[in-house]
Amino acid sequence: MSADQARTGPDIGRLLVTCPDRPGIVAAVSRFLYEAGANIVESQQYSTNPFGGTFFLLVEFHLPGLAERVADLADGFGTLAESFGMTWKLTRAADRKKIAIFVSRADHALRELLWRASTGELYCDIRMVVSNHPDAAPVAAAWNVPFHHVPVTPDTKKQAEAQQLKLLGGEMDLVVLARYMQILSADFLDAVGCPVVNIHHGFLPAFVGANPYGEAAERGVKLIGATAHYVTQELDAGPIIEQDIVRVDHRCSVADLQRMGRDVERSVLARAVAWHLDDRVIVHENRTIVFT
Amino acid sequence: MSADQARTGPDIGRLLVTCPDRPGIVAAVSRFLYEAGANIVESQQYSTNPFGGTFFLLVEFHLPGLAERVADLADGFGTLAESFGMTWKLTRAADRKKIAIFVSRADHALRELLWRASTGELYCDIRMVVSNHPDAAPVAAAWNVPFHHVPVTPDTKKQAEAQQLKLLGGEMDLVVLARYMQILSADFLDAVGCPVVNIHHGFLPAFVGANPYGEAAERGVKLIGATAHYVTQELDAGPIIEQDIVRVDHRCSVADLQRMGRDVERSVLARAVAWHLDDRVIVHENRTIVFT
Amino acid sequence: MSADQARTGPDIGRLLVTCPDRPGIVAAVSRFLYEAGANIVESQQYSTNPFGGTFFLLVEFHLPGLAERVADLADGFGTLAESFGMTWKLTRAADRKKIAIFVSRADHALRELLWRASTGELYCDIRMVVSNHPDAAPVAAAWNVPFHHVPVTPDTKKQAEAQQLKLLGGEMDLVVLARYMQILSADFLDAVGCPVVNIHHGFLPAFVGANPYGEAAERGVKLIGATAHYVTQELDAGPIIEQDIVRVDHRCSVADLQRMGRDVERSVLARAVAWHLDDRVIVHENRTIVFT
Amino acid sequence: MSADQARTGPDIGRLLVTCPDRPGIVAAVSRFLYEAGANIVESQQYSTNPFGGTFFLLVEFHLPGLAERVADLADGFGTLAESFGMTWKLTRAADRKKIAIFVSRADHALRELLWRASTGELYCDIRMVVSNHPDAAPVAAAWNVPFHHVPVTPDTKKQAEAQQLKLLGGEMDLVVLARYMQILSADFLDAVGCPVVNIHHGFLPAFVGANPYGEAAERGVKLIGATAHYVTQELDAGPIIEQDIVRVDHRCSVADLQRMGRDVERSVLARAVAWHLDDRVIVHENRTIVFT
Repeated sequence: MSADQARTGPDIGRLLVTCPDRPGIVAAVSRFLYEAGANIVESQQYSTNPFGGTFFLLVEFHLPGLAERVADLADGFGTLAESFGMTWKLTRAADRKKIAIFVSRADHALRELLWRASTGELYCDIRMVVSNHPDAAPVAAAWNVPFHHVPVTPDTKKQAEAQQLKLLGGEMDLVVLARYMQILSADFLDAVGCPVVNIHHGFLPAFVGANPYGEAAERGVKLIGATAHYVTQELDAGPIIEQDIVRVDHRCSVADLQRMGRDVERSVLARAVAWHLDDRVIVHENRTIVFT
Repeated sequence: MSADQARTGPDIGRLLVTCPDRPGIVAAVSRFLYEAGANIVESQQYSTNPFGGTFFLLVEFHLPGLAERVADLADGFGTLAESFGMTWKLTRAADRKKIAIFVSRADHALRELLWRASTGELYCDIRMVVSNHPDAAPVAAAWNVPFHHVPVTPDTKKQAEAQQLKLLGGEMDLVVLARYMQILSADFLDAVGCPVVNIHHGFLPAFVGANPYGEAAERGVKLIGATAHYVTQELDAGPIIEQDIVRVDHRCSVADLQRMGRDVERSVLARAVAWHLDDRVIVHENRTIVFT
Repeated sequence: MSADQARTGPDIGRLLVTCPDRPGIVAAVSRFLYEAGANIVESQQYSTNPFGGTFFLLVEFHLPGLAERVADLADGFGTLAESFGMTWKLTRAADRKKIAIFVSRADHALRELLWRASTGELYCDIRMVVSNHPDAAPVAAAWNVPFHHVPVTPDTKKQAEAQQLKLLGGEMDLVVLARYMQILSADFLDAVGCPVVNIHHGFLPAFVGANPYGEAAERGVKLIGATAHYVTQELDAGPIIEQDIVRVDHRCSVADLQRMGRDVERSVLARAVAWHLDDRVIVHENRTIVFT
Repeated sequence: MSADQARTGPDIGRLLVTCPDRPGIVAAVSRFLYEAGANIVESQQYSTNPFGGTFFLLVEFHLPGLAERVADLADGFGTLAESFGMTWKLTRAADRKKIAIFVSRADHALRELLWRASTGELYCDIRMVVSNHPDAAPVAAAWNVPFHHVPVTPDTKKQAEAQQLKLLGGEMDLVVLARYMQILSADFLDAVGCPVVNIHHGFLPAFVGANPYGEAAERGVKLIGATAHYVTQELDAGPIIEQDIVRVDHRCSVADLQRMGRDVERSVLARAVAWHLDDRVIVHENRTIVFT
């Protein structure tokens, strides 16, 4: 499932909740929404353990005049949230998230995101494409997205990251690494101010690092994969959002694996980004709850 | 997901609801359960259209002393249900459903069900195996399940079905056709008094009828499938619960397709039966809502 | 597997053979190639029945100076071929096939083909895009491929097809219908002079015709598919080259199915076109042998 | 593809060849077989590099009276093989390989192998089941296969392995570890005298060792897998024959993963064993060439 017209209408709101599990949470939340005049159009929940675990809830609701009422609604919900010890987020589906895409030379994942954004499947504003190479400039241009070439060398990495942060301007809701082959520093991640999603061209936790296809060929695996995950300071170790694989065999060269891997990389990344944009991903203890 | 120990405990109840969609359903149901002392451990819902469509709800809850309280709970819920125009069902997870398995010569689907019942993955009592051939008798015997050989010929079909109904005794919760190669008459389906699930050895709606693998080979398809569905009077046209496929190629003979199809038949049927046993399937207008 | 650099080098030849099966075919063909100085780099074969069936063979070989020697090689092979009653084809891998892509409004399959051609994965020259709508013109322009808008109405279909044939000029090696929503007439197919590959947005033979997603939603299937096939005069009944599916559920609207189906349509079509371009598909009795 | 009646007939032979690649190998082998009166019914080949790499060939042929002629045929082929520097093997398809199955408590993989052997899909003689626990005894008994309980403790491992080797008697063609939870010593592997295939309950090279499902849950992967591989002295590092995966999500407990993993473990192991029994697997530099 992903964004379609009905689900991004002006009156559609989303409530994402994390709190200690206990009886009465759903009753309280649904009563609150009902009394506010909202109609629940979708609801998903999960508990790590109904007796003393952590409870997660996604509610999508329809409330006429939501744009004008969302601030009041949030105020009201804050009181309820406090009594349950909730971490929570209230969003309007119609608010497009602002995203920046980082890419190196391979452009397949970038193309996929631009195209899916154009069809509305990815409901967002792609504000810029940032690359350490000039190659993808025409791709961005074809979709009228600003392109920024920020070269990175071991010596200039610090300055390059400063320039990238300046371009982002602290205004992005999401940065997507669409086959960006530089490792972001801890300082960058501290400063960026929004989640960063990466597509790793391997089936994590196997094949961490820069050469997963070479290692897969060397090991003789019969499946190769791709992993979309949130970026943390530990390389390729952040919370996994989505993974998928493609079948290979002994005849596949590393070049074949790279080519075949492109297809699964782009689709895995597109799904992960769609779920994030639609507020369907919650991170908990380095794992994700994904309400698909 | 399927039955595990936690989900079949003595205090786990399940509420399945179908009703016209309108605001306040979840609020009312969750409040009812909360006030009854129940803790919701899982909830899934679906609406064909939040504005005037049909609403479906599955709630799994924990209520101490459920066995003693379930009758009262149902009484109380009946009043609420009436005000919303609900069709509903309240079950205890610990109540094993009684099932009968019909089979002809091929025993792979039967073996799968018997084995999965033994591991607890299918939470049920397999009361009998009924077959128009004697071949599967040793398989049933190995699992200590009564086996009834009821031969069927065009001339004796009416009497055979009468004998089958007598064996079932109106006491089954589900009849599973695990590659039973006879068509059940409308009279039988009227009289059987419980749902009947069939595994069809083809990807419906393609390849209706008795020879799907032959037709698949003739057509030169690149995938073959299997379909688990509720049986209705129209052949192979009942609500589909689950489907899956396996990749084939030009080298596959009809015998190869039959062999390869066995694997997908047995797994598709096992999933469908598990979902039915766990009260996760609702039929609506010849389609299924499956809360997996 | 698909075209990579090694397999499209100037000295790589391909021999595709169909003949009555009998002992000695492989011995004769491999001896012929060996004596001609060729090194077999790949070989695949299939027989419908080793005793009296039909035999199919693909041999890929390396022969220095192939460009100059291919005519002589073909002459020599002709004699051998006659003695075995072979239907055969000898091609140079380096000869790019000329293709025309027909498309209507949806451009996802067109984009996929253009992109994969640009990466070399589809080894061909895309000579033109022909459409009954103007929508895809910018997509073709972005890849510098000529775009021809040929409107089609029931009244003008005959003239439109004449215009299309004139554009093709009898010079194409393949026409690809990449979601072209018009049915080509028998006269067109007679006149076009090359194979035509279509992507059907359904899992054939289920859901023949123009509305497969609507019918899939109505029937409540749990998988939707796409089918790439050669076009024959019988609608959606030509030899199937490739099929694949994607899992769906009760929540999917027809619009969801269309969106989800796009992904499998484009990948299935791309695989089928790649195999055709690489001479890996043989048609036999309305089925395909595909040497992947 | 796997063994069916036609492919295990008394006159079907198989030739497996590994040698340095150079022109003329296929010509020489196919001429040899033709002159011996054999009809090639299937042939597959692979080269790591047509110019100086290693060449692999599988030929399946029909030769009337093969049983009486196989020794002479091998003699004759030996001369040819020597001139090409071939490592080779000539087998009769009708010769059932003798196998021993090692298992611990979980019996799903054992059941699968026993059942598939009974249908002929695994063409072999299962001579014994060996276990460090008594649990699987009734399963073996139901299929009339001798069961040997050989307890293993850290202190008695040496003696236990000696007992196992004595039971095998140096007469097995294959040992299958069908969820045998003991690590075989280097001494055992040296002495066993036949290949050993293991099913690992994880997607190698991720999750090496005894607790892959626990680690998978901890890491929050979205797919779990199973890997069938030849056993070498390095734990879980031998040549991979087959792998497959199943999709999981945040709701899955370790117990769920274990249950879901069973299905993919048994099917992956069954495919790998079938390919080995049908002489379709060649090991080269710790990787496998699998002619499926």
